[in-house]
Amino acid sequence: MKEKIRVAICGYGHLGQGVEKALFNPANRDMELVAIFTRRNPLSIKPVAPVEVVYFNEIGQYKDKIDVVILCGGSAKDLPKQGPMIARMFNTVDSFDTHARIPEYLEKMHDASFCAGKVSIISVGWDPGMFSLARAYAEAILPTGNTYTFWGKGVSQGHSDAIRRVDGVKDAKQYTIPIESAVEDVRAGKNPELTARQKHLRDCYVVAEEGADLDRIEKEIKEMPNYFADYDTIVHFISEEELQKNHSAMPHGGFVIRSGDTGNHKQIVEYSLNLESNPEFTGSILVAYARAAFYLNERGEFGAKTVFDVPVSLLTSEFTENLVRRLL
Amino acid sequence: MKEKIRVAICGYGHLGQGVEKALFNPANRDMELVAIFTRRNPLSIKPVAPVEVVYFNEIGQYKDKIDVVILCGGSAKDLPKQGPMIARMFNTVDSFDTHARIPEYLEKMHDASFCAGKVSIISVGWDPGMFSLARAYAEAILPTGNTYTFWGKGVSQGHSDAIRRVDGVKDAKQYTIPIESAVEDVRAGKNPELTARQKHLRDCYVVAEEGADLDRIEKEIKEMPNYFADYDTIVHFISEEELQKNHSAMPHGGFVIRSGDTGNHKQIVEYSLNLESNPEFTGSILVAYARAAFYLNERGEFGAKTVFDVPVSLLTSEFTENLVRRLL
Repeated sequence: MKEKIRVAICGYGHLGQGVEKALFNPANRDMELVAIFTRRNPLSIKPVAPVEVVYFNEIGQYKDKIDVVILCGGSAKDLPKQGPMIARMFNTVDSFDTHARIPEYLEKMHDASFCAGKVSIISVGWDPGMFSLARAYAEAILPTGNTYTFWGKGVSQGHSDAIRRVDGVKDAKQYTIPIESAVEDVRAGKNPELTARQKHLRDCYVVAEEGADLDRIEKEIKEMPNYFADYDTIVHFISEEELQKNHSAMPHGGFVIRSGDTGNHKQIVEYSLNLESNPEFTGSILVAYARAAFYLNERGEFGAKTVFDVPVSLLTSEFTENLVRRLL
Repeated sequence: MKEKIRVAICGYGHLGQGVEKALFNPANRDMELVAIFTRRNPLSIKPVAPVEVVYFNEIGQYKDKIDVVILCGGSAKDLPKQGPMIARMFNTVDSFDTHARIPEYLEKMHDASFCAGKVSIISVGWDPGMFSLARAYAEAILPTGNTYTFWGKGVSQGHSDAIRRVDGVKDAKQYTIPIESAVEDVRAGKNPELTARQKHLRDCYVVAEEGADLDRIEKEIKEMPNYFADYDTIVHFISEEELQKNHSAMPHGGFVIRSGDTGNHKQIVEYSLNLESNPEFTGSILVAYARAAFYLNERGEFGAKTVFDVPVSLLTSEFTENLVRRLL
């Protein structure tokens, strides 16, 4: 029997727990969760199945015990520091998703993993990730055309956080909602030019502190630059109980549509996701790419990679002959 | 300036002409159409732009003049013979689509191209091809769940041919139509078990010979085993003029839906195509994979490959750094 791929999770928030769940899937029996690294007190963490929980600073001691580390920290503060540090010791995958800073992060990760003779696959998830693949495949096979990405309906963590920073707001959830008529125009091959406002609606559920000025809060949200000013924004004030009861799930999804043209014939390609749990889906993708990172490194490759560099055959433990028979 | 990738087309039917059109796309300026090989009289072929048209038997004389041959023959009779023969001399791509015989064809192509130190990418197109990729990615990232493939609305060449073989039939077009309620149940994550009849409807437009017994023809079509007996089939008798006027286009499309589950959360992934011209779309895909065959061979790889083995970065001439910046 082949030895299992030894995996560690670094960061045990929603995403880390999603990865842990994915590792229990019988299809991922070729992998084994060896340790969870955390910057919190390890005793405060209760993994689902018994596994070592280790304080982050001790990660270096696990150099020979782990094949791939799945980085589950945030893109703003955790990954820019942790990523290159860990890539100097281990194969890694992460879901770095600050689009504008990806080239810079890729370069840093490449320097680290290349020198170490390891592989790092960065920006894995669904956007960046599966949506990026959908865009790249669709453009490669239909070079003439327009690509549209719509997100939602789903919870945007960044926008929810922005609302929470408004004075007098206790808690909030923001849903990004694609505008159906715009999606339909794109699907019909009309190639519309769409502003931010014409593509997405922002729907906000806000718990205000007692006695706060609701009109002022609503105005501040709606006029917030970058986040809300360029969109039609709806603000609902609700109670804390309602927020807990009706808005604690983490659904998300969206569409990538390529409206292409070959010699005056319309050709529409669409990739869409409808997710009940965003972190569990992202976690499941990270696990598949952790396997690929290990395989690539075994083949003698090193350096930082993206989903664009990885053939789908490396994402699964199934023999390619079987894949061909079952799915081609 | 880099030298262009020298491409030839083998077989100048609908698909070959679709490939030719794709090669005129400005995005494919890194490739150059060098020759068209045909088993017809070369003088009977009028390519869109001036290019050598050569009798098939002379292909061996082009060994040093061509980097990739795009095989545009049929899967039933042409490719099983032509494929291995040409793979002994050139890098190739083809759209071999007899699903049941793919493993056997893959092996033959592998023997041929491996010995020759060339690369052959087989079964490229949309099904097999893009739909196979959609199935493989979706299963890799969502190992628990069910995958459904629906085809249409579109013209099925095989079913149209089957109708034409019925006594008294002059011409015919058959549309495969996915049953909307079944698609909706799958999209809703209901994981239905569907029979052939519950997934697709067969809609037939038939031109009968004068004086033919229409009731008998309709009965023979509807009871034809494999092709129609297991489906709800509708037969319309129309005039030859009507068939020409309303049914000469070659639209197609379909959906691959993965209804997945991660820890009791439904996760739906869908890939869909809505195509006005099936041969132009397939031709455009073949051109992208012709580039990949050339790149793989330049890297020192050889043997037969499928879409599962090819990372998306090899399908385009764009630098990966740009792809990352624009699409990741």
